[in-house]
Amino acid sequence: MTFKINPEIKLAIKREDVESTKVKVRDVLVGGEKIVVIAGPCSVESREQLLSIARSVKASGASMLRGGAFKPRTLPYSFQGLGLDGLKLLAEARDETGLPVVTEVMAPEDVVVVEEYADVLQIGARNMQNFPLLKRVGEASRPVMLKRGISATIEEWLSSAEYVLAEGNEDVIMCERGIRTFEKLTRFTLDLTAVPLLKELSHLPVIVDPSHGTGVRALVMPMAKASVAAGADGLLVEVHPRPEEAKSDGEQSLRPNEFQSLIEDLRPLALAVGRTL
Amino acid sequence: MTFKINPEIKLAIKREDVESTKVKVRDVLVGGEKIVVIAGPCSVESREQLLSIARSVKASGASMLRGGAFKPRTLPYSFQGLGLDGLKLLAEARDETGLPVVTEVMAPEDVVVVEEYADVLQIGARNMQNFPLLKRVGEASRPVMLKRGISATIEEWLSSAEYVLAEGNEDVIMCERGIRTFEKLTRFTLDLTAVPLLKELSHLPVIVDPSHGTGVRALVMPMAKASVAAGADGLLVEVHPRPEEAKSDGEQSLRPNEFQSLIEDLRPLALAVGRTL
Amino acid sequence: MTFKINPEIKLAIKREDVESTKVKVRDVLVGGEKIVVIAGPCSVESREQLLSIARSVKASGASMLRGGAFKPRTLPYSFQGLGLDGLKLLAEARDETGLPVVTEVMAPEDVVVVEEYADVLQIGARNMQNFPLLKRVGEASRPVMLKRGISATIEEWLSSAEYVLAEGNEDVIMCERGIRTFEKLTRFTLDLTAVPLLKELSHLPVIVDPSHGTGVRALVMPMAKASVAAGADGLLVEVHPRPEEAKSDGEQSLRPNEFQSLIEDLRPLALAVGRTL
Amino acid sequence: MTFKINPEIKLAIKREDVESTKVKVRDVLVGGEKIVVIAGPCSVESREQLLSIARSVKASGASMLRGGAFKPRTLPYSFQGLGLDGLKLLAEARDETGLPVVTEVMAPEDVVVVEEYADVLQIGARNMQNFPLLKRVGEASRPVMLKRGISATIEEWLSSAEYVLAEGNEDVIMCERGIRTFEKLTRFTLDLTAVPLLKELSHLPVIVDPSHGTGVRALVMPMAKASVAAGADGLLVEVHPRPEEAKSDGEQSLRPNEFQSLIEDLRPLALAVGRTL
Repeated sequence: MTFKINPEIKLAIKREDVESTKVKVRDVLVGGEKIVVIAGPCSVESREQLLSIARSVKASGASMLRGGAFKPRTLPYSFQGLGLDGLKLLAEARDETGLPVVTEVMAPEDVVVVEEYADVLQIGARNMQNFPLLKRVGEASRPVMLKRGISATIEEWLSSAEYVLAEGNEDVIMCERGIRTFEKLTRFTLDLTAVPLLKELSHLPVIVDPSHGTGVRALVMPMAKASVAAGADGLLVEVHPRPEEAKSDGEQSLRPNEFQSLIEDLRPLALAVGRTL
Repeated sequence: MTFKINPEIKLAIKREDVESTKVKVRDVLVGGEKIVVIAGPCSVESREQLLSIARSVKASGASMLRGGAFKPRTLPYSFQGLGLDGLKLLAEARDETGLPVVTEVMAPEDVVVVEEYADVLQIGARNMQNFPLLKRVGEASRPVMLKRGISATIEEWLSSAEYVLAEGNEDVIMCERGIRTFEKLTRFTLDLTAVPLLKELSHLPVIVDPSHGTGVRALVMPMAKASVAAGADGLLVEVHPRPEEAKSDGEQSLRPNEFQSLIEDLRPLALAVGRTL
Repeated sequence: MTFKINPEIKLAIKREDVESTKVKVRDVLVGGEKIVVIAGPCSVESREQLLSIARSVKASGASMLRGGAFKPRTLPYSFQGLGLDGLKLLAEARDETGLPVVTEVMAPEDVVVVEEYADVLQIGARNMQNFPLLKRVGEASRPVMLKRGISATIEEWLSSAEYVLAEGNEDVIMCERGIRTFEKLTRFTLDLTAVPLLKELSHLPVIVDPSHGTGVRALVMPMAKASVAAGADGLLVEVHPRPEEAKSDGEQSLRPNEFQSLIEDLRPLALAVGRTL
Repeated sequence: MTFKINPEIKLAIKREDVESTKVKVRDVLVGGEKIVVIAGPCSVESREQLLSIARSVKASGASMLRGGAFKPRTLPYSFQGLGLDGLKLLAEARDETGLPVVTEVMAPEDVVVVEEYADVLQIGARNMQNFPLLKRVGEASRPVMLKRGISATIEEWLSSAEYVLAEGNEDVIMCERGIRTFEKLTRFTLDLTAVPLLKELSHLPVIVDPSHGTGVRALVMPMAKASVAAGADGLLVEVHPRPEEAKSDGEQSLRPNEFQSLIEDLRPLALAVGRTL
């Protein structure tokens, strides 16, 4: 291998005898030929908001629904999510649209309830090295989407995946979502090189979140395209019908018609790299 | 104020009518005239190791004992700490030496047991934005030492303190322990400017961890001195009788005689900035 | 505009009444429909080496030839380039292949000689804020390729372009080549978001250097694809017949057959984003 | 040695048989027992401004005078310094006060004139890897003060010193002035660990610039103290009689009475670490 990596990382690393991992989420396969688009609001805000977005992204061609019920917020006074009510709304949206649901879990003691309602357990960037949480989702019955910490090296990210895998949960999806640098015009610096680098090092599927990764609506589309060209297995995209009224992250959310354009523009690109969408 | 900071941060911010916070830990005052030196091993490894270090740092002039019982480790296969047994050893060492004990708590469900044995609950750098944990220690009966995340801005760090304060726990000690940069010769880049910056912005006491902040034994002494000169209220220093045999962080641990020299060298410096030690 | 940028930057910024700049280099247009691939060795090492690479990249479909005659090297003892002899070899290679030549100029007093032999004057990352040099190439008769400094913000990069434009040279090509972060597995972190960001902010063409941007041969291909998908107007790629013998940057140079594959793989992708190659 | 450093760096590195370098600037010794304070305005703006500051800092106890005649500015439209007229004013101020003069040189062709008027040639952070300039000052008859690039590793910084030393100029003073990180409340992050690290690795004297390193007046004093405690051989401090009217960097300049307090507060600290001031 070209890259020097801690040899104690075993389960997350590519091996001759191991096929690349395809994570099955209901009838959706992450890591297969088809590029998986996971779309939805940053936060679940209300029944109307969620169902409207879910129907819309389903119609546009999304494969899964995202939405936050437990929200990690920098300040204690910010909207913290609807919690259990949000989870129930996500399940309702899935039941209506058929889209499997991805949502974040923030504490070990919440895993039981989140896995009851959600299809994929998201570990947020701030919790990438929350080891008790990693161990707990390693015992869960659902796939885990592991976001990269904002200043985590690739090696540390793979080490955190190792925590989940070592507990017996083989279904880990890696999600690049931007790292912190000195650049001020974007919220984070999306590190797309992480995609081919992980493909060299690991058998795990890799998706990209260009919404958090840039923080700017106008940059989501080009960086989504770049992600697909770089070899990503999927995308995580924030969609909101009225971004200016969103309770969180409005400035990076696509409007439904912009999301539809995104999907349409990505299709020929996916074909050009031998994938479908 | 010279600095632009989110005005929603209220409790952590200096106010005309609020005195600077002095955190009382048994008979030790953090944030007073006397600079508080907290010393001990990275990990509690055995009864002999801990008691020997505790006696030694007490004799040299340390004010508190540090030691990890629950250890956050990058890989699941590394030594994860002695857990409850480690807590009991820490309590035993306190009972013998009179040194109050600082130790890390990593999960909300562990707070009950850690506060039973320890005097200060340490929130590690990786958990600075573990909000369920911050809320939980905000309800605890012990002071909290909040380490800065390795890529946290000062504003984010104060926002995390706000989580603890908002739950009613007024005893928060801020601990600068180095941030992640491109520099490779040191483990982290100790951001000492954080000390006077926090003193401008906040009423909370600030200490510095030059052991993690540099990762190199030879740099601990000069950076400890620089911390005191910059206005730090205390130091967190790793000490180990045989660093080359330490289960974690040996290369940055001082030997007992080096720790003694550190204390001796710091005394005149403390006087020169109007403090004692 | 979505982005807050210093309003004193005038000439480098997009304006309603200004078309996007197309830089003409002999018969090659940078910033037009066709994506421009600039290929060649890191350093000009010998007549045989350069001519062999020039013929090969020409045959594979490159539009311009790159090669360093004046080499900025971290240490004074490293190979510093062939200087004037290197420039003459580049001119000879152009005369034979018809490929216009891009090469770096490091000092104001060298501009005269470099513009005599080369078609595009490259300002390297280390000189992005070498203002006397920027002013001098602003007076030159050749287009300027301005590489981004390894820790330059987009705003600073545009400000440096402003130096060149303000002297009257309208032909500036921006080149993203990676920024410095904490990540250790790659040489730099390629900031592809810079491409659509510059397209939003500026009328200048933007190209990407995935060779320096990653420092790893296996990552050049996927990141070249991602660059095209992100909207880049061109690519700067290092090619060497025997990378293991290269005097500089061998580990990131493509072999001629790998370069041929790159071109072939990029063609359908260019079409998918409405460009040619 | 504890630190792994490129073994090709020879002249800048500490050796058993080489004493630590003391750079003699007229009658001032940099690297000796006495801590050298270099003070003055960011830019030379006028005869009155410069002479008034020079007299004032001399009276307060400064050892050398700083002031920019050639100013590296991000934008071409900003005040670029008085050039030759500024140099003449600096020489006049030295003649009157006896303070040797430190000023920046930005281009190889300016070295002749700058060394005619100034006593120390400053290489600014942006030019730390301007190799033609480094070679040229390596041939100069004056000591060189080499500022660290804002994203330069210690190894790269020493490599740049090697360029100067390799040309035969043995008098190099290293100046830490802050590195670029994600922190937004300060202009740069002052990396004080660089001081003891260089003392371990090199025989060259090291000074610190807390003015640029923080960018905030209120932080200059505590970081100056911390620099001395960390082992710095000197300080570079910006002083301006009316900072709010300064043509550059006003917000980080001390007023004359603040500079006087700085000197007074530093004295006991210098004594506490075995130095004078």
